[in-house]
Amino acid sequence: MTNWIEIDTYAKEWLKEAGDRIKESFTGKLNVQTKSNANDLVTNIDKETEQYFICKIKESYPEHRVFGEEGFGDVIENLKGVVWIIDPIDGTMNFVHQQRNFAISIGVYEDGIGKLGYIYDVVLDELYHAKSGEGAYLNEAKLPKLEEVSVDKAIVSLNATWVTPNKRIDHQTFTPLVKDVRGTRSYGSAALELAYVATGRLDAYITMRLSPWDFAGGKVLVEELGGKVTDLYGNELDMINKSPMFASKPGLHQEIIEKYIKNGK
Amino acid sequence: MTNWIEIDTYAKEWLKEAGDRIKESFTGKLNVQTKSNANDLVTNIDKETEQYFICKIKESYPEHRVFGEEGFGDVIENLKGVVWIIDPIDGTMNFVHQQRNFAISIGVYEDGIGKLGYIYDVVLDELYHAKSGEGAYLNEAKLPKLEEVSVDKAIVSLNATWVTPNKRIDHQTFTPLVKDVRGTRSYGSAALELAYVATGRLDAYITMRLSPWDFAGGKVLVEELGGKVTDLYGNELDMINKSPMFASKPGLHQEIIEKYIKNGK
Repeated sequence: MTNWIEIDTYAKEWLKEAGDRIKESFTGKLNVQTKSNANDLVTNIDKETEQYFICKIKESYPEHRVFGEEGFGDVIENLKGVVWIIDPIDGTMNFVHQQRNFAISIGVYEDGIGKLGYIYDVVLDELYHAKSGEGAYLNEAKLPKLEEVSVDKAIVSLNATWVTPNKRIDHQTFTPLVKDVRGTRSYGSAALELAYVATGRLDAYITMRLSPWDFAGGKVLVEELGGKVTDLYGNELDMINKSPMFASKPGLHQEIIEKYIKNGK
Repeated sequence: MTNWIEIDTYAKEWLKEAGDRIKESFTGKLNVQTKSNANDLVTNIDKETEQYFICKIKESYPEHRVFGEEGFGDVIENLKGVVWIIDPIDGTMNFVHQQRNFAISIGVYEDGIGKLGYIYDVVLDELYHAKSGEGAYLNEAKLPKLEEVSVDKAIVSLNATWVTPNKRIDHQTFTPLVKDVRGTRSYGSAALELAYVATGRLDAYITMRLSPWDFAGGKVLVEELGGKVTDLYGNELDMINKSPMFASKPGLHQEIIEKYIKNGK
């Protein structure tokens, strides 16, 4: 039997320790490299943080597997058993340019089912965490269930990229939605944007290309509060490959899909 | 002779006091109304905060005039003498929905020239402040002069509204810019976005319709660090009426205007 209480205790301890190391790095020199393209950044701190988690996890739970952004973990083709899905620094561009607005994201899944979710805003020392079926918290404060909201009172996170010509979707799809909502925002960290949906600061978050480590932690958190986290059309997310992602409050999720996505261009 | 040291001391004292009152309001019930349209929000706290500043300013400086968003100040048709340009809560939508990501913004001008600038992120207790010719600070830390950056390494704040059909500009104007920059963001508070430009967290900020109280404080701050704050085409901002606004690092400001705005649709 998996001891989720123990795993949760360790995860929180490791998050704090990793956060402290990241904060210490602010005074040193950052080594920034690019990955798939010139705007896909990675730093030595992303890599060291992922390695830190892998060492800790493998030491305590040699049978658990790790699916991490920087590739130091296991080769993952399915989610059998316990898998830690980790983004050591979600929002690396913010980390490099702003030294804020980034987070460590962790989802712990068992046989493909989300059990624990963590998003740690290191700079603000805000840990968003959820244990499936047992509530979600921001630090010690229990988060209330998400309430329904209408489109005209909703704030939606949607980056300008997705409403200008791009490779992923007809950019005119979202035009009526941008017009109808109360406002749009974009923060540059999927994990934090999911934490914002969980706390009701955003009512929805739409983005066209995320990897499982970007949303694995946030999905557990948002779903625990009654929100929906799916692909753009409301289908289950692919937990192995990249997908478009749509997270939202209940009600609003269905309304946006029916009125704006399915009827879109 | 205007005693700017005294004014600066009072301004900081009043900002902290106003910030404390705003934070106290989080536990009470907010009274939210709409102004020019359904998404133009105002609360009792916006109004009370503006009234607080007006009382304090008029008590100490009866000859100073106040140009405030909520209209409790003077009727302003020119900037003769000393004028305090105040937005008691910049980012009211964020204040209502998020209880964060808003700021008090104050610019103190003499005969139209910016002398003092303040942006106070109440929740994070971060006061960005500048005295013209004497440096800019985040709390006690002096901010370094802004350095040049190329478009392909720039993060630009640009809301999705301005790249979808809208009343202010041909929405295709910004398409090449969105494609060429490293990333775009949108935070929903002009004052904070200007503070982000001042600290280099953003390299530029473009928006199509701001009032003088939205940028009066940030303009002093950004300019003190060598940045440019103009209308969209690089002209002096109108300090009485609404304008499009473009704030950016030196060099990048000229490059974006020449390559993207003037050659735009």
